Amino acid sequence: MFLRPQGKMLVPSLLLLLMLPVTGAATELSVTESLQSGLAGLGVSGDHGPPGLVSPGSTGEQVQPEVAEEEGSHHGGGFKIVQWEWSYVQTPYIISVWLLLASLAKILFHLSQRFTTVVPESCMLILLGLVLGGVVLLAHEKQLYQLEPGLFFLFLLPTIVGDAGYFMPSRLFFDNLGAITLYAVVGTLWNAFCTAFCLYGVKLLGVIDEKVDAGLMDFLLFGALISAVDPVAVIAVFEEVHVNDTLFIIVFGESLLNDAVTVVLYKVYMSFVEVGPANVGTAECMKGLVSFLVVSLGGTLVGLVFAVILSFTTRFTKKVRIIEPLFVFLLVYLAYLTAELCSLSAILSMTFCGIGANKYVEANISQKSRTTVKYTMKTLASIAETIIFIFLGISAMDKTKWAWDTGLVACTLVFILLFRAMGVIGQTWVLNRFRLVPLDRIDQVVMSYGGLRGAVAFALVVLLDGEKVKAKDYFVATTIVVVFFTVMFQGLTIKPLVKWLKVPRSTNRKPTINEEIHERAFDHILTAVEDIAGLQGYHHWRDKWEQFDKKYLSKLLLRKSVYQKSELWEAYQKINMRDAISVIDQVGGQRVMVHSRRL
Amino acid sequence: MFLRPQGKMLVPSLLLLLMLPVTGAATELSVTESLQSGLAGLGVSGDHGPPGLVSPGSTGEQVQPEVAEEEGSHHGGGFKIVQWEWSYVQTPYIISVWLLLASLAKILFHLSQRFTTVVPESCMLILLGLVLGGVVLLAHEKQLYQLEPGLFFLFLLPTIVGDAGYFMPSRLFFDNLGAITLYAVVGTLWNAFCTAFCLYGVKLLGVIDEKVDAGLMDFLLFGALISAVDPVAVIAVFEEVHVNDTLFIIVFGESLLNDAVTVVLYKVYMSFVEVGPANVGTAECMKGLVSFLVVSLGGTLVGLVFAVILSFTTRFTKKVRIIEPLFVFLLVYLAYLTAELCSLSAILSMTFCGIGANKYVEANISQKSRTTVKYTMKTLASIAETIIFIFLGISAMDKTKWAWDTGLVACTLVFILLFRAMGVIGQTWVLNRFRLVPLDRIDQVVMSYGGLRGAVAFALVVLLDGEKVKAKDYFVATTIVVVFFTVMFQGLTIKPLVKWLKVPRSTNRKPTINEEIHERAFDHILTAVEDIAGLQGYHHWRDKWEQFDKKYLSKLLLRKSVYQKSELWEAYQKINMRDAISVIDQVGGQRVMVHSRRL
Repeated sequence: MFLRPQGKMLVPSLLLLLMLPVTGAATELSVTESLQSGLAGLGVSGDHGPPGLVSPGSTGEQVQPEVAEEEGSHHGGGFKIVQWEWSYVQTPYIISVWLLLASLAKILFHLSQRFTTVVPESCMLILLGLVLGGVVLLAHEKQLYQLEPGLFFLFLLPTIVGDAGYFMPSRLFFDNLGAITLYAVVGTLWNAFCTAFCLYGVKLLGVIDEKVDAGLMDFLLFGALISAVDPVAVIAVFEEVHVNDTLFIIVFGESLLNDAVTVVLYKVYMSFVEVGPANVGTAECMKGLVSFLVVSLGGTLVGLVFAVILSFTTRFTKKVRIIEPLFVFLLVYLAYLTAELCSLSAILSMTFCGIGANKYVEANISQKSRTTVKYTMKTLASIAETIIFIFLGISAMDKTKWAWDTGLVACTLVFILLFRAMGVIGQTWVLNRFRLVPLDRIDQVVMSYGGLRGAVAFALVVLLDGEKVKAKDYFVATTIVVVFFTVMFQGLTIKPLVKWLKVPRSTNRKPTINEEIHERAFDHILTAVEDIAGLQGYHHWRDKWEQFDKKYLSKLLLRKSVYQKSELWEAYQKINMRDAISVIDQVGGQRVMVHSRRL
Repeated sequence: MFLRPQGKMLVPSLLLLLMLPVTGAATELSVTESLQSGLAGLGVSGDHGPPGLVSPGSTGEQVQPEVAEEEGSHHGGGFKIVQWEWSYVQTPYIISVWLLLASLAKILFHLSQRFTTVVPESCMLILLGLVLGGVVLLAHEKQLYQLEPGLFFLFLLPTIVGDAGYFMPSRLFFDNLGAITLYAVVGTLWNAFCTAFCLYGVKLLGVIDEKVDAGLMDFLLFGALISAVDPVAVIAVFEEVHVNDTLFIIVFGESLLNDAVTVVLYKVYMSFVEVGPANVGTAECMKGLVSFLVVSLGGTLVGLVFAVILSFTTRFTKKVRIIEPLFVFLLVYLAYLTAELCSLSAILSMTFCGIGANKYVEANISQKSRTTVKYTMKTLASIAETIIFIFLGISAMDKTKWAWDTGLVACTLVFILLFRAMGVIGQTWVLNRFRLVPLDRIDQVVMSYGGLRGAVAFALVVLLDGEKVKAKDYFVATTIVVVFFTVMFQGLTIKPLVKWLKVPRSTNRKPTINEEIHERAFDHILTAVEDIAGLQGYHHWRDKWEQFDKKYLSKLLLRKSVYQKSELWEAYQKINMRDAISVIDQVGGQRVMVHSRRL
């Protein structure tokens, strides 16, 4: 079994772990239904009161029919001492219990150190999901829970993207922005088109069964959703592998920035499937191009606007430090929601809001708020990731939702691996002509192998309209297999691969003052070189941006007291803080009594 | 006006502040409706996809009719470049915007220091609510938003109670538990009965108008809900007043512990109103008594069980520090929900879960998790409080929900003030015969005056069934006036009163090591004295409990490494940490360059 029992503490945990399916079984409600009826209950005042405060007869639909009956017949018999108020508390209860289950799963997996160094957490969580789904399936013959696209896109995904965007190493990101954009746009388009056309080709050749009722448009749609690298999967797998920073930022940046491509392709093909391939003209294709620009640039703009609002407002929170963390979360989340509202790229919006605001917000808010923001974001992202993988596992156990065709599954797997590798090699060849530090062969292997697909693809395929896309069930099954293959097989093997290829690992140490000074000096030198050569290259523009930031943006967005502090002071303060903490850590770690001299 | 504009930064904030009513107006949806339809949208996969990912024709109900029409007629016209996806994002959007509004309101109020020292925040928030409600009312002639009991009891109240319970000064609480319980049980019963009977009396005398169609049972019900001191109001007002710790813990503890009394009285009278006063027998009254014991002791027990589970599980989170904060929130919240589920006292459950788990959890989790838990809880509680007061203001502007009778309002105000004072004086007289440090006159005045009513009473009166309680609308109006009077008038005047009476204030300094040692020595001496005198008093039992805790509980609930550390080590570690931080603070505060010597 996948759970490694380690003695007595497992008993209560496992009891809790099993609580949910039992609860679910007792009430015969799916998450979906309960979300609906629960929130409906919230809305109707007077109908679902707090337990014990509801008059008999007005309790709404009781879950257990016997109780309801009893209440009806005893109408003159006064009140019950203890009532069972499931319908009233079920929404928050089910959500809390799922979160608890996810937390407990995490705790259990990490009890055995030896195990977790080999098997990635995401694999374990999917397996747990499969088992839970299997248990529910055996008990009910239908699946009660699955990863709902609404839940995923509105709550789980933003949690992860928000954390990723806000703590994005911005220098590294912008240094590699060219490469990231190329892979995200050209790479994703290449993957999508090649996979789609080749699948259509093998369909014509008869490798894919007749029963898969799909035309070119259907395959293009499927290609669009299956070919984007997934941020959630990339974070989950790469954070355990620790490849070097450049490699990570390229794959991870790509997984975030390809959102606009996916959104537009999906939208365009959806409409093509509607109108039929015969009616697709040049005008429609042009509209697709315009749409891409609007979705990507619009999303980015929304993000930046929210970044400015957020940074600006945190200038004035000195007397209400208590709400600073919430304020940061709210505005980053609103950047995502607003982009969704206008059907722009929400991931781009949130990413750029985070990147843009981070510097100013961190300077404006208090040390304690910073810690709270950091750890709360990490906690939420971690738990959202956990829930996504568990639900992916559970969703796979839903027989009613998918149909199997070996040809389709096998061809898709081969094509996405093949075209990913070809795309990476081709694009890197072009890129290396412009890069100062070229991406070598080993990098390309890791990038190809690290092109993981994940929950976004799954949520998109579930969103398809089965009426219009006849082969939906086959696509669902194929997507599940692709996601499982990339997350589980590739996730499991990428660590040994990276070791075997001797990929440079990331070092966790912070740059010394000396290194920082040298880096800054180099920046200035390179800018000067570009200026002398008459080039307006990357360094030239970065310098311009830094001057603009210093002259206007920082003045506008930073608290006055922060802005007026010299950089020397900042640096000193940082070192001082590091020193003080390291003293405590030393003492704490080595348990040696040392007297810290009070100054 | 209540907003003190301070220059340019007000403009964007105010724009955002006004955003919500405008959004609400544009879509004609109340929070309730939107919660329902939004979450319903979440549930139905394939119907409401993410923006831009929804095929034309399957977008569900579009908010703007013209768009929907256009889509219908252009069925062959491809896709829209930008779509307006309000129905998809509205639930999280509305919630986020409300939270944002509350945060901005807080930031704005604290811009003027001079203002906030005189006027308590809760008054300002209610005023803001009144203004917002007025704006919406002018635009729509009906109120879109109000404080829903479901929202209040399931989400807002637990946030505040959780924070209060977890950070309850447990020593102080248990030292005064006798007094707290007396005031909570006897005091609340006294208030409820006296207010009810006297209101019934003046109704018979004709002081209250004929149109208020209420009998004895209705008044008993009203008395039950109006007489409990409210935790939210007490926290909001008292945390700005800073009376001494003992006085605060008595009033605050009472406001938490009277929940069981309120729940049971409300439940019992509800059933009495159902069956009619004629059918109420001794059996029913006995059932009420049993119910009280079940609700209070059951709630406490549920809380303690969750406290044990929480403490025990945090022993094993060493490798997954990241989820520790979430885990704490979840289990404390589940303690509340589980009590609600079984219709026990949820406030008692959550309070005792917090008090019980705090010591062990804080020792088990990491320093960073501790900071995150603390500040996240404080942030959430603060924002929940803000939202409650704003919504109280807004709810008051809903003309359709209330009916005015001057006699009822005036009599209720007089009675609750009068009986509160009488109750406090009577009970304190009894208490002082047993207390080592008696409560003097000034304490009694503050306790009487600090018996604030608040949102719990309002939520309960809104929950009444208008069919059965004919005078509901009059009760609603009276409750609103009582709440506003206590929070605004008493909240505004209690600070000058406390100053005028020279009530000993709380000192914010921590006890020195010397004081702590003496306190502990005194505890042992008092225990010895009780032992010699053959008494089994409070100190005897506390000593027994401490021995039990040391022998069994701590062994079970504390991480081994924590448990094995000596107390001396703990104390040393604490001092060391305090020193290191004070060094940094000194340097940071005075901006003096001091070299911290590295050890």
